[in-house]
Amino acid sequence: MNNLCDRKLRVAVVGAAGYIGGELLRLLISHPGVEVAAATSRGLRGRPIDGVHPNLRGLTKLAFCAEDQLDHYDALFLATPHRETMRRMPHFVALADTVIDLSGDFRLSDPQVYEDYYGVPHESPDLIGTFVPGLAELHRERLRTASRISVPGCMATAGILALVPLAEAGLIQGALTVDAKTGSSGAGAKAGPENLHAERSGALRVFAPTRHRHEAEIAQATGLPVSMTATGVEAVRGVQLLCKAALMPGADEKAIRAAYRARYGDEPFIRVVAHRRGLHRFPDAKILSGSNFCDVGFALERGASHVTVISALDNLVKGGAGNAVQCLNVRYGMPEALGLEFSGLHPN
Amino acid sequence: MNNLCDRKLRVAVVGAAGYIGGELLRLLISHPGVEVAAATSRGLRGRPIDGVHPNLRGLTKLAFCAEDQLDHYDALFLATPHRETMRRMPHFVALADTVIDLSGDFRLSDPQVYEDYYGVPHESPDLIGTFVPGLAELHRERLRTASRISVPGCMATAGILALVPLAEAGLIQGALTVDAKTGSSGAGAKAGPENLHAERSGALRVFAPTRHRHEAEIAQATGLPVSMTATGVEAVRGVQLLCKAALMPGADEKAIRAAYRARYGDEPFIRVVAHRRGLHRFPDAKILSGSNFCDVGFALERGASHVTVISALDNLVKGGAGNAVQCLNVRYGMPEALGLEFSGLHPN
Amino acid sequence: MNNLCDRKLRVAVVGAAGYIGGELLRLLISHPGVEVAAATSRGLRGRPIDGVHPNLRGLTKLAFCAEDQLDHYDALFLATPHRETMRRMPHFVALADTVIDLSGDFRLSDPQVYEDYYGVPHESPDLIGTFVPGLAELHRERLRTASRISVPGCMATAGILALVPLAEAGLIQGALTVDAKTGSSGAGAKAGPENLHAERSGALRVFAPTRHRHEAEIAQATGLPVSMTATGVEAVRGVQLLCKAALMPGADEKAIRAAYRARYGDEPFIRVVAHRRGLHRFPDAKILSGSNFCDVGFALERGASHVTVISALDNLVKGGAGNAVQCLNVRYGMPEALGLEFSGLHPN
Amino acid sequence: MNNLCDRKLRVAVVGAAGYIGGELLRLLISHPGVEVAAATSRGLRGRPIDGVHPNLRGLTKLAFCAEDQLDHYDALFLATPHRETMRRMPHFVALADTVIDLSGDFRLSDPQVYEDYYGVPHESPDLIGTFVPGLAELHRERLRTASRISVPGCMATAGILALVPLAEAGLIQGALTVDAKTGSSGAGAKAGPENLHAERSGALRVFAPTRHRHEAEIAQATGLPVSMTATGVEAVRGVQLLCKAALMPGADEKAIRAAYRARYGDEPFIRVVAHRRGLHRFPDAKILSGSNFCDVGFALERGASHVTVISALDNLVKGGAGNAVQCLNVRYGMPEALGLEFSGLHPN
Repeated sequence: MNNLCDRKLRVAVVGAAGYIGGELLRLLISHPGVEVAAATSRGLRGRPIDGVHPNLRGLTKLAFCAEDQLDHYDALFLATPHRETMRRMPHFVALADTVIDLSGDFRLSDPQVYEDYYGVPHESPDLIGTFVPGLAELHRERLRTASRISVPGCMATAGILALVPLAEAGLIQGALTVDAKTGSSGAGAKAGPENLHAERSGALRVFAPTRHRHEAEIAQATGLPVSMTATGVEAVRGVQLLCKAALMPGADEKAIRAAYRARYGDEPFIRVVAHRRGLHRFPDAKILSGSNFCDVGFALERGASHVTVISALDNLVKGGAGNAVQCLNVRYGMPEALGLEFSGLHPN
Repeated sequence: MNNLCDRKLRVAVVGAAGYIGGELLRLLISHPGVEVAAATSRGLRGRPIDGVHPNLRGLTKLAFCAEDQLDHYDALFLATPHRETMRRMPHFVALADTVIDLSGDFRLSDPQVYEDYYGVPHESPDLIGTFVPGLAELHRERLRTASRISVPGCMATAGILALVPLAEAGLIQGALTVDAKTGSSGAGAKAGPENLHAERSGALRVFAPTRHRHEAEIAQATGLPVSMTATGVEAVRGVQLLCKAALMPGADEKAIRAAYRARYGDEPFIRVVAHRRGLHRFPDAKILSGSNFCDVGFALERGASHVTVISALDNLVKGGAGNAVQCLNVRYGMPEALGLEFSGLHPN
Repeated sequence: MNNLCDRKLRVAVVGAAGYIGGELLRLLISHPGVEVAAATSRGLRGRPIDGVHPNLRGLTKLAFCAEDQLDHYDALFLATPHRETMRRMPHFVALADTVIDLSGDFRLSDPQVYEDYYGVPHESPDLIGTFVPGLAELHRERLRTASRISVPGCMATAGILALVPLAEAGLIQGALTVDAKTGSSGAGAKAGPENLHAERSGALRVFAPTRHRHEAEIAQATGLPVSMTATGVEAVRGVQLLCKAALMPGADEKAIRAAYRARYGDEPFIRVVAHRRGLHRFPDAKILSGSNFCDVGFALERGASHVTVISALDNLVKGGAGNAVQCLNVRYGMPEALGLEFSGLHPN
Repeated sequence: MNNLCDRKLRVAVVGAAGYIGGELLRLLISHPGVEVAAATSRGLRGRPIDGVHPNLRGLTKLAFCAEDQLDHYDALFLATPHRETMRRMPHFVALADTVIDLSGDFRLSDPQVYEDYYGVPHESPDLIGTFVPGLAELHRERLRTASRISVPGCMATAGILALVPLAEAGLIQGALTVDAKTGSSGAGAKAGPENLHAERSGALRVFAPTRHRHEAEIAQATGLPVSMTATGVEAVRGVQLLCKAALMPGADEKAIRAAYRARYGDEPFIRVVAHRRGLHRFPDAKILSGSNFCDVGFALERGASHVTVISALDNLVKGGAGNAVQCLNVRYGMPEALGLEFSGLHPN
């Protein structure tokens, strides 16, 4: 059913004062098929949301409410911390027909892997299997009827979208090395010395040399071992991955292009960017701020034994809130790009 | 007439390879009431526009054409250099029912002032009077029937929108001082030592200590003498003005708020931002990238003899292309915000 | 006496974990005439200083101590908060022959002005008069024998050095307008939402539209009323001021150049930068990071009634720690530029 | 001989108007053992050098001269383009006792490898063998008597210093993957669309996905195959490398620390930065601007099969001009750190 023909979806955002919460509000408030019925914040109950999300000034009169004021919704978006999310999920699922979780708690199918990467045992292992991964490009059919959706991490999304087509097509093998670059908004809106402007500005900070949690998501989706390092770079928004993978015998540029075309030829939000020359040969997060695109590119030398893959996205949009809204559109039979049409800016 | 009821407007952009041209294309291509029929570039004839405007990848198949391939359009947008524009205006006006000029050549009503600020005599003085200033907030009625529209400069727009309500209401007097800060995109897409990243990055460059051309536009609109200095700051997009003006006897905060409310209470793209506390007390260009808002704020001490006025906008949108599209919407009876709904991003 | 002939000065820094404290350590540790005998921090007692000042790795084995471990020193540098500093000054002056205070508490000679700008009554008004202003360019002779020195604020230093020569020479009159731009390090090393990278990066934040405390220092030094607004810009280091002042009858470019030459012709750290053309016509804080220079420039139109004055410096060096070390050099008869020779970087 | 006992070295810089040339001038002008006798520029003959190097204002009266005005020098620094340098080297070597070449032409010992990476045959293959690599940490003894020195590339220096100790000690094997991040100054002072601020600012631009010339230098020095990708990040100065290498059986953290200690324990400009916690756990180019340090760090998981190595430096200093001055100091028996004492800034 296309809900645009009858009524708007009633949705709520839990944890709406943070950056992912704010981006959900930005997208949902201007979404023609949605009514934002509630946005919760513990600290800011009763305060107008545009106080912390100044870009929404003049666009909404919505104020934050407390979680105990929530009733029942078509869809509930969770921008809540990991651990807390898995603990409270039994409560959340009772509040909406569809729960779209942006925390990390239901992304990893194996509770043991969760414990290895999160350092705590999973508290709702029985629920993990009930979540569909929130990536329309790979799980569109299941999402049409999903009542529980787990949106992947920002760096994981860039890695999964870049590497899965090559892994599926049997073009790459062995261990993948991933150099992930990320802007500061990925660390959230909580102030701390590590995000103090004077410390973070211009930094090239290796904050996760090994074992970043998103590494486990990429390994899970590709079925290949992954060695990922995450570095904070000078940017507020943006994630960009540089991946290197050994090629299977016979794999060449033609086969790689074909694999991406087969997977993404009709995708509205994936663009393959791999040119021989020009200023914009490869994906660059710089031009993706605010957009729901994930740009994917690659390079390999004639006769090379490995391929270099590059992918970029806005961590708060395609790497989070935009991806979640895309899932909502799929789930409720709305046009998949509805509310996600912004192209991004150049120059920016 | 509301053209949405019948057909899309056929429009063309002259000088579409530059930054203002690219921003016009970004807005017009996604505008539901418009068909972009032509985009000209001398150097790039026949090349796809997304080669220089990579944010438009996947959104258009449009290629640049040469100017001699232009026919006739409902509206013609001119993103052409000053001097050349005034020289060729007789030719341009024959190509469209409505010409929307983003150059500086028809902004100043007095040819002598033009010569003082541009250093050359005006070559089409007789045409100056036929242009309506492209600012819907101040000239909406005239724009509904205008066939020739001259969009003000980016810094001028920020200054005029901030100061005219106070000047009109007789709240300020004497010489205005204006400190204008601007990002690098205002200098256009031509490479030169002054815009080399290593030189421009992090610069606080006073590039026009006095006599900037936009100073003349603010003086013309307010009827007050203006002393403006323009400084390039670390940003790609964004213009922000800090203005100081002497208050007329009896003028106070209440009167200033009232003047802005009277002028802008119903305006879709002007927000008065002047809070006592909080992180976002005053306008900040940082959150306006891509949006058509001009945020205006002010501060004055009790009993102070002068007022401090702050205004901010995206120089390529409300300071240029967005303003031009807003004029098009007014001119053709379309909803004024059509195609200009993007809220801007936070954080960004 | 030139202490280089006999022994090194024993100095201590109170509040050495902050940014001004760290800059003092950077300069003093490499200063050939100084031995850093102690650096205090309440939170980090016993921890190596290069843990929070990583640029000093490999250059020192110094660790933070507690204040109660201080004994007696030739010179004591105070990088302590205002209010606390005035309250504890009787204690501090007993610890050293020379106290060099970088807080705001002893900069304003009139306790009433202090109360107006700091919002609290001064707690040691009797001591104010015993401090010599820490600006060698204006108070060199008094500094040679000063036992108590109060270093001016970062923005105040830029304003005082730019405007005093013109005020002294009777070239300017009436109210001065000052637009002050500052990097984020001026706010110190304490994390808070206002300095979160995602909020502060790229901001043009008017954080003090009126009544900034440094305004009072500029007014005191020039004897003229000042209307200053302070804006945070995208930079970590750097302060740049744009000032406008009405000219006295007969004042012209020649007279202004002469006034600066008379005042600063022999100064090692003041450069007059005012060229007709070129990329580097006026002062720019961009190239001053790490240096002790204050660059001063100006522009005026022939026949203009006012002058535009620009000044720039590194807020942590000439606007703080470097200025303090320069005072130390003067006080103890060392070469004035000793330990302050770094030229600054270009490009940077 | 220690020339400080007798006279200053007469040196000249060819190609002194560029960024490497300017950095050489900055370091050499303040170097107590050196007299800068000439600085050449074709375009700027007769113009003061501080016109293009504004950080040197007030520190020198030197003007650019033409190359035909050169006579004979103790040392000649070449900041000249590749190809031209090898062609003119027979001329240059006649002008000085010691030639220190910062171009790429004499870094690769195998002319065939040069041709593979530079795309042209080497024009002075017979001279290649007469150059000593300009890296004191690896070639100090040979440099003491070298008359021809070839300074490695900026990214190559970071890679060689990080990886050679591990390769020498037999701790790593197989193909190395190198992700190199670089600021915009590495591209030099020539303006072009790729370095336009609006395009380059905030970019994450993969400009050399494969086959960057510095890749060949790292492979030559380590004797291992290297797959390097170079990405331009938001910075003016700074190079940072993230390298991954397979470990030889038995190689562990202890062995790696020991290898670095053995190689660098007494080195003045190499710091091993690899901490378990804290804000500054690993090397970060952010704090190295202006300094001659190369910080090297690493991380590996217990039982991991590969090591992650991080190195950072200022591309214009340790990655170029500073390294060249360090070689000069070694060559002429001066203290190795003379003129290179600047610590770098934090915050910055």
